[in-house]
Amino acid sequence: MPKSLLVVGSIALDTLRTPFGEAKDELGGAATFFSVVASFFVPVRLVGVVGEDFPKEFLRVFDSRRIDTAGLEVVPGGKTFRWHGSYQGAMNEAKTEYVALNVLGDFRPSIPKNFRDTRLVFLANGSPVTQNSVLDQIEKPDLVVADTMNLWIETQREALLALLKRVDGIVLNEGEARMLTGEHNLIMAGRKVLALGPKFVVIKKGEHGSILVLHPTDPSNAALTHNVCPLPAYPATEVRDPTGAGDSFAGGMMGYLASTGQYGFQHLIRAMAYGTVTASFAIEDFGLRRFERLSIDEIDRRLNEYHDMLTF
Amino acid sequence: MPKSLLVVGSIALDTLRTPFGEAKDELGGAATFFSVVASFFVPVRLVGVVGEDFPKEFLRVFDSRRIDTAGLEVVPGGKTFRWHGSYQGAMNEAKTEYVALNVLGDFRPSIPKNFRDTRLVFLANGSPVTQNSVLDQIEKPDLVVADTMNLWIETQREALLALLKRVDGIVLNEGEARMLTGEHNLIMAGRKVLALGPKFVVIKKGEHGSILVLHPTDPSNAALTHNVCPLPAYPATEVRDPTGAGDSFAGGMMGYLASTGQYGFQHLIRAMAYGTVTASFAIEDFGLRRFERLSIDEIDRRLNEYHDMLTF
Repeated sequence: MPKSLLVVGSIALDTLRTPFGEAKDELGGAATFFSVVASFFVPVRLVGVVGEDFPKEFLRVFDSRRIDTAGLEVVPGGKTFRWHGSYQGAMNEAKTEYVALNVLGDFRPSIPKNFRDTRLVFLANGSPVTQNSVLDQIEKPDLVVADTMNLWIETQREALLALLKRVDGIVLNEGEARMLTGEHNLIMAGRKVLALGPKFVVIKKGEHGSILVLHPTDPSNAALTHNVCPLPAYPATEVRDPTGAGDSFAGGMMGYLASTGQYGFQHLIRAMAYGTVTASFAIEDFGLRRFERLSIDEIDRRLNEYHDMLTF
Repeated sequence: MPKSLLVVGSIALDTLRTPFGEAKDELGGAATFFSVVASFFVPVRLVGVVGEDFPKEFLRVFDSRRIDTAGLEVVPGGKTFRWHGSYQGAMNEAKTEYVALNVLGDFRPSIPKNFRDTRLVFLANGSPVTQNSVLDQIEKPDLVVADTMNLWIETQREALLALLKRVDGIVLNEGEARMLTGEHNLIMAGRKVLALGPKFVVIKKGEHGSILVLHPTDPSNAALTHNVCPLPAYPATEVRDPTGAGDSFAGGMMGYLASTGQYGFQHLIRAMAYGTVTASFAIEDFGLRRFERLSIDEIDRRLNEYHDMLTF
């Protein structure tokens, strides 16, 4: 049975430069990528903020999909969050050229009443104080997963530690996992994160894939001979713009979990495989463009192909 | 039906320092790791050279296994190849502190008559001129796989290109694949290597696993919707000494292929999985020590666990 899915996070206007071209004021932001991708799987409830300058045609991107924008605040006279970034060479890392938080700086998410019964919640990257305030407004969700970043690990560690006690899963990149735990080995780092509260940790390694680390003592994992699952990235040859890959990963993962309504170990692995595949589409073109010409059938075909690659 | 397996390459005395300890005059070298690992799967024919200083108890390491040392030359008055290396921090890269080729510098492998009918040949890292000279001495092998390194790509490119036309498969690390082809994307790099002759390329990425790239036009791959297989590394938490991981990977891969006597796509993938697992044992202790207390049953158990990790 599909379950309701909510995302809270940034909506941005991105200006990008990669070795393959440039894009100006492209629709972006963590909650945008997440919701567009997850909407291939289930209807999505979006909570975010934009300024009065937010282009009308970008609202139609949400409205044309199964994305409920009842929680999308438009601040009169406000300006939308802007990020300018560039990638060089192998595009392993974004260089931030310019950032203006604008209306995102004062964002205090208010969850619409009819969103408060949401079963699955994704807290996209944002201040852990804000992420905690979102959880205060949700009634007993089944599954809460959060993303975070270096900035919050450094500046709001206490609020982040409080958040980790309230979530089921956390999504981190490898540098963040190491920073949070002081542990270089990613499996050891994942286990240290588990000791802080979550039931599972997904460590993203970009072009090198991802690792799922689980509580060995969780009874639903009792049948396992292992509590770690490494998945390679889908072997991509067309990489034009890595922006949004991580949030597209999370959108595929959470969208799939919401579509099944089950959160056991085997579902988590399959969800990570879906996330791997949706991220592989994201990077094939600038911003969200690849998703404009994508279907769930195409996602499923690539999932099957990816599955076959790992079958021996 | 198991097929005969031959390896030609270095035998060394290694002096190592890692964050987990030190070892002096440890038995090492590419052909050593390869043959010890492959001998878990099939009998192995070893061709290499050592000096008169080579400790008798190290000869017993070979003799106590299914390793035929008829091709092991002992140079009277000669000194064995020595390598001193160290690893720091995450141990991603070995730093060579000292190297003395000694008898390896003048090594002109002579393949014993009863080795010349060998079905599977692994040319461990060595000068491509030498590797070519080995192939001149083998009668119609079924499968030849070679390893190489940066040095030969830079200094003996012509001989290496000639070799690539004579082998079925090549094993490279990611830096070598990029250096050989000038292509950053590893799948594109793999395809450029295929254009130079081999039927398959294995690109090793250390802690990030490996990628198999195949000829899309090979009829035995016609059923595939893809011609790339990425495999993650086994998620290791005990890493004490990475020395020999790459040759242990090759030993598991070739040992498994020799044990089945089949070289199709599905066998190659499973062979890579075995290589992944045998490499994961190599790094758990210094030198060859982990293999002294390892059984094929333990290898198979870890292969099954690894298989389950990738099943969704």
